[in-house]
Amino acid sequence: MGETKKTTIVLFSGDYDKVMAAYIIANGAAAYDHEVTIFHTFWGLNALRKDEPIQVEKSFIEKMFGKMMPRGANKMGLSKMNYAGFGPKMIKDVMKKHNAMPLPDLIEMAKEQDVKLVACQMTVDLLGLRHEEIMEGVEFAGVAAYLADAENGNVNLFI
Amino acid sequence: MGETKKTTIVLFSGDYDKVMAAYIIANGAAAYDHEVTIFHTFWGLNALRKDEPIQVEKSFIEKMFGKMMPRGANKMGLSKMNYAGFGPKMIKDVMKKHNAMPLPDLIEMAKEQDVKLVACQMTVDLLGLRHEEIMEGVEFAGVAAYLADAENGNVNLFI
Amino acid sequence: MGETKKTTIVLFSGDYDKVMAAYIIANGAAAYDHEVTIFHTFWGLNALRKDEPIQVEKSFIEKMFGKMMPRGANKMGLSKMNYAGFGPKMIKDVMKKHNAMPLPDLIEMAKEQDVKLVACQMTVDLLGLRHEEIMEGVEFAGVAAYLADAENGNVNLFI
Repeated sequence: MGETKKTTIVLFSGDYDKVMAAYIIANGAAAYDHEVTIFHTFWGLNALRKDEPIQVEKSFIEKMFGKMMPRGANKMGLSKMNYAGFGPKMIKDVMKKHNAMPLPDLIEMAKEQDVKLVACQMTVDLLGLRHEEIMEGVEFAGVAAYLADAENGNVNLFI
Repeated sequence: MGETKKTTIVLFSGDYDKVMAAYIIANGAAAYDHEVTIFHTFWGLNALRKDEPIQVEKSFIEKMFGKMMPRGANKMGLSKMNYAGFGPKMIKDVMKKHNAMPLPDLIEMAKEQDVKLVACQMTVDLLGLRHEEIMEGVEFAGVAAYLADAENGNVNLFI
Repeated sequence: MGETKKTTIVLFSGDYDKVMAAYIIANGAAAYDHEVTIFHTFWGLNALRKDEPIQVEKSFIEKMFGKMMPRGANKMGLSKMNYAGFGPKMIKDVMKKHNAMPLPDLIEMAKEQDVKLVACQMTVDLLGLRHEEIMEGVEFAGVAAYLADAENGNVNLFI
């Protein structure tokens, strides 16, 4: 009774629309006083990348990965109807028309609402990312930390 | 003890196979006396569209979205092995052979079992859909309503 | 108090990266003494296929399905950046460099940790697979069995 509810999201996807769904649910849950954690792994990590290139030492393959993946949420494609980047432009236009928050603002809002943003250290390593390339305020952790949150979660989603 | 179990599904996907998985789980849960809600958002909304075009006032971009997206579950593609529409045909053929229910029947069955079908109003607006284009018996609501269901849910899935 | 926690995963996806995420979570949960079930359905069934062709009686369409789908986890593609099979090779190379377990080993580990591996009988039939083509130690069951596990689950995911 009166116990704080918990929401956890594993954000695996790096598609603009799916990341948007994740952050809308997270912000909604935070507004209803849930403790919320988003655990970013694989392509979902790209939502946390700074949008300008950062000077860091990388191997050839790590540089390739870095270039092929979107730098930040705003550069992501859609999971459907992407049409070589025309889809995201259309979606962003209609979002503007409907006064819906663009994805980078949804992420800012999540931070302000104390949604815990976690980057999966193992996949950070696999994709050759460096801590300096990830936005401020993000924690780095592993599957054990995720499970500790999720096993007491009321709403646990994989997106 | 004796409390009603709850299942909630966020149906984000608009792929025939994923929507089928969602409705099979929902119908199963309803058969086991769960209270079941499917919250349709983004491409998942297309499962709820009437299959004939409805005369409604739309902007140019809304008309485009309307044409590019499948009108109803039966016109959806597969998430894998779609092969320009040949994959869905093959799957439907083998489903028939195995007496598996086609997707439109699974949706009908869900309604008959009182599965609550919800369309996310925000994404209805974004994709330029109108209430008249959505099948009867669907509620329109937002993320707050979803969370109110899900925070007491036993099985919460994002599909 | 002291009650065993439960994790269930519906593994719908047949992408190397998503299957890897599923098995990493499953192995993590098993290491924390959760009872863990992975319910493989649709393309996720391919993770359970033996990697050599098995002689079984099949219809023409079942043979086609069998050939088009990957035989076992090691032959799967990526959900993103697959680049005609070059993506998986790159990922496997960096995994080796970081001493991360390849997917077939993660599946072996799950078995050793008594993760319950279930194949959805209905989709086994739909995709024209035979029990002889599925690896040892896998149970065959339906959505009812899944729900019986999931309704008491602490962490329930759809991947």
